[in-house]
This record gives sequence, C-alpha cells and structure tokens, in this order.
Amino acid sequence: MKNLNVGVVGAGRIGKIHVENIEKIDGVTVKTVADPYAGELKEWFETTKAENLTENHEDILNDEDIDVLFICSPTDTHIPLINAAAEKGMHVFCEKPISFSHEETFETYKLINEKNIKVQIGFNRRFDRSFSKVKNLVEENRLGDVHIVKITSRDPEPPTLDYVERSGGIFFDMTIHDFDMARYLASSDVTEIYAQGGALVNPDIAKHNDIDTAIITLKYENGAHGVIDNSREAVYGYDQRIEVFGSKGNAMVSNETETKVKLFEKDSVSEDNPLHFFLERYMDAFYEEVSDFFTAIKEDKQVSPSFEDGMKAQQLAFAAKKSYETGKPVKIDKL
Amino acid sequence: MKNLNVGVVGAGRIGKIHVENIEKIDGVTVKTVADPYAGELKEWFETTKAENLTENHEDILNDEDIDVLFICSPTDTHIPLINAAAEKGMHVFCEKPISFSHEETFETYKLINEKNIKVQIGFNRRFDRSFSKVKNLVEENRLGDVHIVKITSRDPEPPTLDYVERSGGIFFDMTIHDFDMARYLASSDVTEIYAQGGALVNPDIAKHNDIDTAIITLKYENGAHGVIDNSREAVYGYDQRIEVFGSKGNAMVSNETETKVKLFEKDSVSEDNPLHFFLERYMDAFYEEVSDFFTAIKEDKQVSPSFEDGMKAQQLAFAAKKSYETGKPVKIDKL
Amino acid sequence: MKNLNVGVVGAGRIGKIHVENIEKIDGVTVKTVADPYAGELKEWFETTKAENLTENHEDILNDEDIDVLFICSPTDTHIPLINAAAEKGMHVFCEKPISFSHEETFETYKLINEKNIKVQIGFNRRFDRSFSKVKNLVEENRLGDVHIVKITSRDPEPPTLDYVERSGGIFFDMTIHDFDMARYLASSDVTEIYAQGGALVNPDIAKHNDIDTAIITLKYENGAHGVIDNSREAVYGYDQRIEVFGSKGNAMVSNETETKVKLFEKDSVSEDNPLHFFLERYMDAFYEEVSDFFTAIKEDKQVSPSFEDGMKAQQLAFAAKKSYETGKPVKIDKL
Amino acid sequence: MKNLNVGVVGAGRIGKIHVENIEKIDGVTVKTVADPYAGELKEWFETTKAENLTENHEDILNDEDIDVLFICSPTDTHIPLINAAAEKGMHVFCEKPISFSHEETFETYKLINEKNIKVQIGFNRRFDRSFSKVKNLVEENRLGDVHIVKITSRDPEPPTLDYVERSGGIFFDMTIHDFDMARYLASSDVTEIYAQGGALVNPDIAKHNDIDTAIITLKYENGAHGVIDNSREAVYGYDQRIEVFGSKGNAMVSNETETKVKLFEKDSVSEDNPLHFFLERYMDAFYEEVSDFFTAIKEDKQVSPSFEDGMKAQQLAFAAKKSYETGKPVKIDKL
Repeated sequence: MKNLNVGVVGAGRIGKIHVENIEKIDGVTVKTVADPYAGELKEWFETTKAENLTENHEDILNDEDIDVLFICSPTDTHIPLINAAAEKGMHVFCEKPISFSHEETFETYKLINEKNIKVQIGFNRRFDRSFSKVKNLVEENRLGDVHIVKITSRDPEPPTLDYVERSGGIFFDMTIHDFDMARYLASSDVTEIYAQGGALVNPDIAKHNDIDTAIITLKYENGAHGVIDNSREAVYGYDQRIEVFGSKGNAMVSNETETKVKLFEKDSVSEDNPLHFFLERYMDAFYEEVSDFFTAIKEDKQVSPSFEDGMKAQQLAFAAKKSYETGKPVKIDKL
Repeated sequence: MKNLNVGVVGAGRIGKIHVENIEKIDGVTVKTVADPYAGELKEWFETTKAENLTENHEDILNDEDIDVLFICSPTDTHIPLINAAAEKGMHVFCEKPISFSHEETFETYKLINEKNIKVQIGFNRRFDRSFSKVKNLVEENRLGDVHIVKITSRDPEPPTLDYVERSGGIFFDMTIHDFDMARYLASSDVTEIYAQGGALVNPDIAKHNDIDTAIITLKYENGAHGVIDNSREAVYGYDQRIEVFGSKGNAMVSNETETKVKLFEKDSVSEDNPLHFFLERYMDAFYEEVSDFFTAIKEDKQVSPSFEDGMKAQQLAFAAKKSYETGKPVKIDKL
Repeated sequence: MKNLNVGVVGAGRIGKIHVENIEKIDGVTVKTVADPYAGELKEWFETTKAENLTENHEDILNDEDIDVLFICSPTDTHIPLINAAAEKGMHVFCEKPISFSHEETFETYKLINEKNIKVQIGFNRRFDRSFSKVKNLVEENRLGDVHIVKITSRDPEPPTLDYVERSGGIFFDMTIHDFDMARYLASSDVTEIYAQGGALVNPDIAKHNDIDTAIITLKYENGAHGVIDNSREAVYGYDQRIEVFGSKGNAMVSNETETKVKLFEKDSVSEDNPLHFFLERYMDAFYEEVSDFFTAIKEDKQVSPSFEDGMKAQQLAFAAKKSYETGKPVKIDKL
Repeated sequence: MKNLNVGVVGAGRIGKIHVENIEKIDGVTVKTVADPYAGELKEWFETTKAENLTENHEDILNDEDIDVLFICSPTDTHIPLINAAAEKGMHVFCEKPISFSHEETFETYKLINEKNIKVQIGFNRRFDRSFSKVKNLVEENRLGDVHIVKITSRDPEPPTLDYVERSGGIFFDMTIHDFDMARYLASSDVTEIYAQGGALVNPDIAKHNDIDTAIITLKYENGAHGVIDNSREAVYGYDQRIEVFGSKGNAMVSNETETKVKLFEKDSVSEDNPLHFFLERYMDAFYEEVSDFFTAIKEDKQVSPSFEDGMKAQQLAFAAKKSYETGKPVKIDKL
C-alpha cells in the first residue's frame, strides 16, 4: 500500500506528541510541520524525521503529495483548515473542540460528507485501556441497562487567565472531553443538560466570564442519568475517574499511578499520587488514537470519534453554557 | 446519677436494634416497649431486659418513671408522639424523617424549644467512623475550602410497592439521609437544589408517583457544590460512598467489607462485596448515635443531629420533590 | 440448660477482655475473678457483674459451683491450674503457650483425656473472619492443593526486657500464634522447621538470649512449604497478613484499618495505618473464641483449637528455638 | 559522537525485544542478527531496520564495524561469546545466567577486567519503576536499617520438560533474578542461604532433578534476613511482588494490571489479573535496561547490573542448589 504523507499544523504540546506517534506507525510519514513560531521549533524539529518545517500552513494545503492533515492549531483555525482540506480531498485529524460556532461547524459537516473525507476528532480518552474496557462491558450488556454515568475530571492546575480568555470557557475547553466520554460510555445521546458551578479556585476567572468548578447533570435518550464534576485545580494530580452503574453491575475506573509502591511508615500509609496531567495519563491513548485513525484510512473504515461526535460534544458545551447562564436545564435539539 | 428509664415505641427492625444498643449503656434501662403488634414480639421481648411489653404507647407516655422516648414507629406518628413527650418533659430520640408536613414540623419545633426537651434525629450515618473522620478533616481545614461534595447512596434491593406507597417517596425515605450527610460534611446549609431521575429499577414505582433512581445537585451557602446519586437497587450490595473535594485535598470513603481477603484465581481477582445493607454497614454507628444521645442528656449538652437538622433535611426533601416535578432548580428558604 | 459459672484466674489485659466477652454470652456467668493483685483491680471489678474478687485462685478451684476455668495467668501457672481443674472436672480455657516444658505438657495431655475435660487454647486468630474465610477456601478445595503458606506477623512495639526475660523467647511468646495459624491454614502438620533471625530492633534483647526478628520456614506433611516472618517492631502498626497459595489460586489477607478514608493531598495519597495492636485487631475474634468455647461445652462438642493444637504449636516453638541455636533445620517428631 | 553498531546473537523472544528496543535509541544501530534458525526469522527480520541476518555469529565477531555484542543465545554459549567479544574489545550485554560453571565465569571475569570491556547482565527487574523506587527508599534511608527483604516470584505456567532439562534448574533459570533483586534491594551481599522446595506443580519435574516450588532464606552481610518464594505455576498470572521492611518503615510493591477497572456484580467484586508474564510485566524495564547500557557506554560509566553482579547471583544459585540437595544452610564465600 502507498505510503501516507502527513502535514501537521501547529506544533505545540499536542502537535509534537502527534508527530512522535505518527513516526512510530508503519507506512506513514510526517512530511511537513507548519507553525507560525517555526523559528523556535528548530531544535525539536531536528529530533524528528520530518522533511519540512514552515511558518505557512498553505505549504501543506498546496502540497499534492500530502494525504492527511493534522490540525493542532488554535480552535479558531479548525473550520477554515478542515474546509480547505476537504476541498483538497485530504483526510483530517482535528483537535477538540471543532469550533465555537455551531453554524460553521454544521456547514463544515455538510462539506466533509459531500467531499467524502474522513475527519477524526481528538477525543483521546476513548482510547484509554480502562475506559474502553468499561465501554466494552456496556456493549456486552455485562452491566445491564445503564442507569447512572459518573465522570470526575479535574485538572491538576488552573490555566493562565490568558488561556482562559481564548479557551471558549470551561465547557468548551475542558468538559468537552467529558461530554464525549459521557456519550461514549452510555452508547446514547443526551437530551437535556443542567450545569452549575463557580469560580472557586481563582475568583479572577469570573472576570473573564468563566468558572473553574462545575457540576453538570445529563439526561440520556435511553433513560439513563449522568453527572460530570470538574475542577481546574485538584492539588493532588490529574483526577480522571469514571463509573457506569447499571441494572447488573457497576464498573469503576480509578486513577493511574507511576508505581505500585505502598509505603508504611509510623504516621502514614501512602502510595503514589495520580499521574500528574494528560501527557502522562493518556500517553498510550494518544498513540492509539493516531494508530486507529491511520488504520481507518488504510482500510477505508469509519473513523471514531467522528466529526459528528465532535459536533455533538460541542452542542452539549453550548447547552451547558446556556444552562449555567440561565440557571435552568436546557434541552438538546436532535441534529 | 439517677438511672434513665426509656420507653420505646415501635419494635420493628430499627426499634429492636435501639433496644439492644440501649441495654449496652450504663445507667440506662429500657422499661417499656410499645408496639401494636406486641403479640408477635413476645419471643424477641424475652431476649431483652425490658420490663413491659404493651400494645399501647400511652402506657409509656403516662408512666412518670420514664425519662426518655424512642420513636421508631411510622412517620405519621412522629409529630403526635414528640408533642406528647414534650408536654411530659421527656427527651426524645426520633427516627427520620420527622414528618411529611413542614408546617406541623415547624409547630413542633417551637414546642420542643419552649418545653426545653432534647430531640435527636436518627441520622445514624454521622456516627460512621469513616464519615466522621472526613467531617473532622473538613473542620480542621485539612481539605481547605470545600468545593465539591459527592455522595453515592444506593440500596441493595428495592422496597415493596406497599412500602413505597407509605414511604413519602425516595427523597423523604432514602435521600433524607444523604441530605443530612450533605449538610454535615460541608458544614454549610444548602441554598438551591435540582433533582432528576426516573423509575429505572422498577417501572411500577412510577405508578406510585415515585422514582427509584435520582441525581440531585446542591448549591451551598458557602459557595460549594454538591451532588447525590441514588438507586434503589445496586445488585452488588449497599453502596455508601462519599467524597469531599477542597482547595487543599480530596477525601474519599469507599465501602466496608466483611473480610480483607483477596482471591487470585485463573479467571479473576476478587474480593468481598460491600456489606449487604444498613444493619451490617452501620451496626457500630447505630450504637454510637444512641450512646452519644444519652451522654448529651446526662451532661446536659446539645444533641446532634438535632431536631433542626431533621427539619432542614426534610426541607431539602420537599425541595427535591418539587424540583423533580417541575424540572427546575428550587431555592431553599432560610428557616 | 443449667447456667455455667466461670472462674477467671489472672485479670491482666487479656483476662479483662475475656470477662467482658463472657458477660455478653447467654447462660454464662463470671462468678469469681482471682488475681494476686486483686487490690488494684477493685475499680475495674466494679464495672463487671462478677460476684467475687479474690487474691487466691484456690477460691475458684474449691468452689463446686464453678464449671469452667479461664487461665489468663503467667505461663508457669498453666500446667498446675489445668491439672487441678482436671481433677475437679472443670472445663478449661487456657491462654497460650501451654507451658515451657514438653514433658509436663504431655503429662497434662494424658490427664485431661483421662478426666475427659475440654481444654481450649487461646489461639484467637483462628476466629478472625478473614483468616477463617481463607481456611474455608482451603477446605472447599477452592485453592487446590496447598503449595505455599506465608504468614507475616509483626508487633508494633517491642516488649520490655523484663517481659522478654519471662516470655520464653520470641518463638514461645509470639511465633506460637503463627505456628498454630500455619497448621490451621494448611490443614496439615509440620514435619521440619528452620529458623534464622537476630536482635535487630534492640540489640539488648540478645543479652537475654532472645531475638526480635525471625524468618522461619516449614515443611508440611502434605508436601506444602511455609514461611513465617516476625518482627517485634513494625513502626507502622500491628502487621498481620497471611497468604495461601495453591494449585488453583492464591488467597491473601491484608491488614484491617479503622476507617476507609483515602486522603489525596498535594504531596501524598494516604490511608489509615493498620490497627495498632492485638486488642484492636482481634477484638471480634476474642469474642468469637469465647463464644465458640461455650457452645462446644453446651453442645458437648470438641473444642478447637484443642489442647493438642496447643501442644503441637509448642513443639514447633521448641524446634524453632533449637534450629535457631544450631543453625540447622530440625525435624518434628510425631506426637 | 560516533554511532554504535550492534550485533545480536540469538533472536528468540528476548533477542527480538532487545532489537526492537535498541532501534528506539538514538545513535545506535543493529547491524547484524545471528541465529542458527535464521531461515525462520526472515519475516520478523523484515520488520527491523537491521542490515544482515546470518546463521553464523562469527559474522558478528569478525565484523570490525561492530562495537557491541548482545548475547541472547542459550546459556552454554555465553562464556565463549563474552570471551571472544573481550578479545575483540566489544562491549557486551549478556542475558542471565552467565554460565553453569563458577570457574569458567571467574576466568571470564578476569579477562573482561583485563580487556577493560563493559559487560552488563540482563537483570531487567532492576529497571522496573516500582522496584527501583523501593531501592531509592532504601538508599535514602527512608526505611531505616533493613531488617527483612521478601520477594515473591511466580511464573504463570511451567516450562516444558525439555526446557527444564536445559535450564540448569529452577535456581539458575528463575530464582537467579530474585537473587539479584535480593542483593539490589538490600544494598548488601548475602552470606548464607537455605533452600527447600519440591515438585508440586508437576511431579515429572523431579525426574529431571529439578523442583518447581521453592522457599529460599538468606542472611545478609548487613544483618538483614531475606526470603524468596518461587512457583513455576501461579494460575492467576505472573506474580512479582517485593517487600522491604526496615526500622523506619515497610515498602511493598504489588502486581501491575492492564487496566484500573473494578467491576461490582451481584456475586463478586473483581479487577484485572496481574499482567500475564515477563514480556508484559517488564516491557518498560526491558527498554530501560538497554537504554541505560548504551548511556553507560557513551559516557564511559560503570554498567549496572555488572558482570560481578551476575557472578554473585550465580554463586547464590549454586549455594541454593547445594542447600536444597543437602538439606542444610550453605555459607557463601567472599568472591
């Protein structure tokens, strides 16, 4: 089979990880990396096997040798880049969230279907071994009918206020992953959402019209109920737990740690803190999502999580924001 | 100090436990047990050290030797019995919930203050060693400012439909314990509540205007947020977990088991299921609450959880019911 | 059935616990407590329901109303007291070890069989819920053939040198419990033993011809192999773990804790230390062993652990001591 | 720095893993793979980046471009290969055990010192994150003086009788890893050893003069005591646990699992079995040991575990075998 050439737009933290993972996959080559700060990336670029480093993403879009586009740049660039890729017939892997505009996203949805390109969204958590094991338990009916889905998702440290300003708010930036996880675990869409929260970690976040602590409840199409709790600062580490409770059982996922050492001392019995943040926690998942994406391309199968999954998570983020602002539950329209 | 004589009204499951625990306490004697089904209780009564078994609770109220009344009879008898005890100057230990009527409860509240009797409500979970350790961590500021309180409370098996009919509904019968725990753990009152749920365990429960699965979110006066999840049937046992997340840490309580055996076999690694139900899980707590109550009487100290605590939990049950019925969050009035 | 009257010789820590537990059992009464320091025990004695407190154990042996003797006095008094009880036809509950002399013990063994009295030895650990669950797994062949038995038994703090002097040494005083547990868990006798160790906690213990740290290996009649490790000082608490590994599985028992709280903080994730010492750890087991003993008497069944079990544990203590002193494995004679 | 060229002798299970790991390391290239069954390895070889596949290891030894030799062939080839490499000035990474002859090993020890080549032995477990964390706790004196070292090491399935025949016996083939771990964890040499065991998993192993179940106790130069327990068949998976108990604390390492899912069902609460075998369990450690080896070469630092470590582990295997055969403890000579 023909080798796949990849162009990567955006070589920040997540872009770099994707480049490293792509390079581990047989039959795939990173040809070009585009980033406006290319000048500062030279040292890192030397450690890769990529051919070109450029400031201009047009160098990728105009390169007929490139088959696949990775979009790791800021959210406001996603839609234009996907649209351009669709016109060129390139497949796309795009980081979350797709955009901050439902209308734009929907237009792009129609375009990619028309152009028949594959677009996978970077919901890496679906590829976590523990979470996908729980998903399998649900699919195999081992848990019976799903009654309650619980997701705890807390970052170890709050973002800068600058970042908050550009992030689209907690629901678009952080909870978006949990919205996808909530749909994934229950194998059902969400019909209603209610959100409450506050700026408890850093009151200054409120000045940016955002919050850092939230509890969001969900009603599912299949009758189940869900709840997500978020905090921008869990001082003990990245807290990523899920629980799916059904008529036949309950599956719980606890946090990962670096070692399995338990230390018994005079005044305490202690063990490792949870892995610090997403890079450590989802290291394997980041590889798996990229590997799965290329397999789907090579075997011409549906990608998952799809653009539609991204769009639905985004829809929940809009609804959560509205619920938080109005103080009332918000119904989710069918797409 | 003078011996305290106790009369117990209602010798069902919980009434019997209280009799057994009272008999372990120095300086306290169960004098009379009153139950309309006294005839069926003779065998059990023989195993106690109590003097009288009667069908008529008036035999207790009219006995000037009796100092303390335990009310373990159905909810609709609570208010009349507390009122009668107040008139006689008897101290009262009353099972939850106090009543199904906020007005009656409030009238009784005024009466017991006027008559200066002590009334402790049977929120046994406050006396669980693990939960009270978490409460202490909160009080000592070990967790910092409280941001999120989470309570999971699931029964191992659903009640009969007959019981459901008389229970006042899930919020008064089951969640009432969690409402008290929610206030206790956060050391703060609740200002708003939102409830969603359904009859997922047994659809017939819906015909009795009740649900068996619920998620309830809370806003606290101190800015914290809370969430309770309930189910009437967790097939794996009585699921009683709490979590208090604050600016300095997170305290989690997992379930108790009968043994500490872990069994490694070819196809599984397994351990004990959670203790089956409240009798097993809170056996020690049932003793501690009664012991604490008599200590408060002997040393003339405030009882805790107080009648006011019971009234506030009841208020939350009303609000949760209203929220569930209207589909909207409900604000809690200051008492 | 006739009430059983009990005399208790020795009201130290363990004697007091037995009195409290006996008083919880229906149809059994502590009539007399004998202790040379009776004068100092008056305050405690007031809290019991016992009739007499005396300095002279003859007051028990000469009391025809007394049916059962509890021996909680120092080891050198055990044999004379059992012998006297046997002559009177009293049943006996005796603390471990039976004696420091194999010959004396064997003579007494013959006497109690001749006089047909029941003698139970105070190996309380057999009554621990976790350990007896593992025993059941072995008996039900759930673990298959037993291959390896492992026992970890470490005290939280070393005894005084005075106590060491009178204790008979670590094998008689401490490991004796593990020797019984080793036989109990494997349902097999031991045929050979090897012991090594040293005075690592407190070098002064060596001056008393004793050690405080030991590893003892066992060969079983059924082909299995065992290992016990002991320390007189585990700074983190009383460490009582067992493991039985067989052809079909492995059962492990971890330590008990007071609560199920797990605390996540910036620099640690911690939980409760193991329960401090035997009074806390085996509180329930101390009750169960006494309850079982009286049931055996009332129903005229065999007591367990029996005098023979005590004798065999003692035999292993002798062999371990000899192995430690000679540096060689020691074979165990068939009784 | 000059690129390092590597030749690998033996491309069985472990040889293949080393090739894959070497290829991840910057500045190192696998040039030639030699294996008598080269014909069957072509498909695998195609997935590597190596240049040559040969049946003849002389092709490596005679290649002046090759700097480093990996010895992954049967034990009886180790000494001749190390000797040849030493003559050529190649550095060596050699799998365990070094040999079955103490004299030969000692001669080679002198040779490699004379020729000044680095020889690292494949004790991969030292590179496990959990075990090395415990080693660090020991080094930092966090555990105080080491009193007891415990190692549990059980394979998930027994080897074929053919393999047993060639393996040198359990102590050389399996316990050798534990002997190294025992020295590593305690940071002390062993002075005496005692071994007992039997053919409990498969009695036919006895016909090959070997056993499959063993308990080995150790006395350390620093006064500590150790115990290793081995089985060739733990039906529940590869059981790899350690424990280091000291005057200030106890560090325990439990097994690794694939996921962190806990499943609560009606009749059980279960979690993942331990990772199946060494390839899964020590996947990361296999990479780390190779990475460390090349770092030591590039920076001209001492390798660890060294040839001397391998020789000492081998010495313990000899002593364990002798102890098992004679039924007596065996002293270890100073090298």
